[in-house]
Amino acid sequence: MTDTFATPQDAEDCFYDSLEENDLDKMMSVWDSTGNILCLLPMASPLIGTEAVRSGWDRVMQAGMKIDILVSHLHWIETEETAIHVVEQRIELADSDHKQPPIFATNIYRRTASGWALILHQTAPAPPPPGMQPGMPPGM
Amino acid sequence: MTDTFATPQDAEDCFYDSLEENDLDKMMSVWDSTGNILCLLPMASPLIGTEAVRSGWDRVMQAGMKIDILVSHLHWIETEETAIHVVEQRIELADSDHKQPPIFATNIYRRTASGWALILHQTAPAPPPPGMQPGMPPGM
Repeated sequence: MTDTFATPQDAEDCFYDSLEENDLDKMMSVWDSTGNILCLLPMASPLIGTEAVRSGWDRVMQAGMKIDILVSHLHWIETEETAIHVVEQRIELADSDHKQPPIFATNIYRRTASGWALILHQTAPAPPPPGMQPGMPPGM
Repeated sequence: MTDTFATPQDAEDCFYDSLEENDLDKMMSVWDSTGNILCLLPMASPLIGTEAVRSGWDRVMQAGMKIDILVSHLHWIETEETAIHVVEQRIELADSDHKQPPIFATNIYRRTASGWALILHQTAPAPPPPGMQPGMPPGM
């Protein structure tokens, strides 16, 4: 866990690389070592703190799926201390032609004494295909 | 839009009050006036910038639903400049006994020269009831 990241984007690249490589230690090197971190995966309870985050991703990686993740930049809000990256993730399964629906994700990084570190990852469903109208409430 | 908020919690209280009161101007007073803001409502495209955020909430409020929102604190990550509040929202419709499923929300505030202001609101579905197992992938 000696990786350091000069920019939020460097940390983000490592985060998604670790998922494609099913490399849990690499994944955990991206997270802030203070442990004041939170990960919200879909339809799951929040993972709060290093141990919970590690266990959650361990379960994902134990599935051993071979995936490619295409990440598109939607919007950045960055200050000297904090970087918020909202992205669209498209996950492609290596052994399937089935297209997964895209997912929005928010990744928040903070500047630490040793570089940028991830403090929050949260996903959200993307809109349904054209022609299907999403309902606005109750999910505001 | 002259509201100022001495703490992130003051801003958050105003945000949820504005929803219960269907008060769009009150809602918009919480958002950062720089316009570098983003709102991700469920199954909808990101609302980026003041006009998009205002239009999105206007559509929600035009529905004129009478709601109560119960907000539970899940986790705070706060620095001098930025406050990240992860909460559980339970929305109760005044005219219905139907229980809405809870929703997780992340609200991010930044300290401005005139107080704390909301820069991001994102929701995510909460876990299904006990007995239903959520699938982890593909939504990581």
